[in-house]
Amino acid sequence: MVRCLFVLCFTSLLFGQDSEIRMILKDSEAAWNRGDLETLASYYEDSPETTFIGREVTRGGTKAILDRYRRAYPTREAMGALTFSEIEVRPLADGVALATGRYQLKRTAAGGGDTSGRFTLILRKTRAGWKIIHDHSS
Amino acid sequence: MVRCLFVLCFTSLLFGQDSEIRMILKDSEAAWNRGDLETLASYYEDSPETTFIGREVTRGGTKAILDRYRRAYPTREAMGALTFSEIEVRPLADGVALATGRYQLKRTAAGGGDTSGRFTLILRKTRAGWKIIHDHSS
Repeated sequence: MVRCLFVLCFTSLLFGQDSEIRMILKDSEAAWNRGDLETLASYYEDSPETTFIGREVTRGGTKAILDRYRRAYPTREAMGALTFSEIEVRPLADGVALATGRYQLKRTAAGGGDTSGRFTLILRKTRAGWKIIHDHSS
Repeated sequence: MVRCLFVLCFTSLLFGQDSEIRMILKDSEAAWNRGDLETLASYYEDSPETTFIGREVTRGGTKAILDRYRRAYPTREAMGALTFSEIEVRPLADGVALATGRYQLKRTAAGGGDTSGRFTLILRKTRAGWKIIHDHSS
């Protein structure tokens, strides 16, 4: 009985975690699609330890992440329309999770053309909610 | 005093963790450079949950990881000589760590030429030592 309750609690904890993180991804996608990179960057932890591995490595808080996005996607045309798919969320420990998925950018030829790739995110539950502490996108 | 001892224990725990994971990376590099993909694959957790994001997504235990490496690098010439650099290890929780770094492959033109990229590894401490549960290499 106790074990059963424990499993139930743990399961609902995991489902809660899973849906909170899926919501962040949904919100990030929406922020991107309205050109709101500030909101997108706010989902990263504002810490000098935060890392983003893309073509190069970016390290730092939300400002560094925002600057990186602005450099890589200087116009709305270069940003295009973003869709996330194949999202999977895996708990790593209490308050730490791994999220993986696929991104697709629908863009005009002038914007750089369509592109797609995959991401690995590590998120940590902070007082301000789940924050991305590491992003590897390729 | 107690806090001081706690900090000391925690610090030595982290340093121990860090050096164990660096040793695995050193051993993986050596295994690659003698063409021993079985040993390389043995550093991944033998679980259906283990994931590898490269050009495609591979999912599964050491056999799936080994098959993926054999498909991507069918000959010693295609494997070339591997060097890891810029390695950073970050604890995520008790028994869970993030390791990032750069890989370089020195290869003949016939082997595909030199190439390099970056990796994100998530490792979990198991009874059989630290094992990679997720790899994103690009």
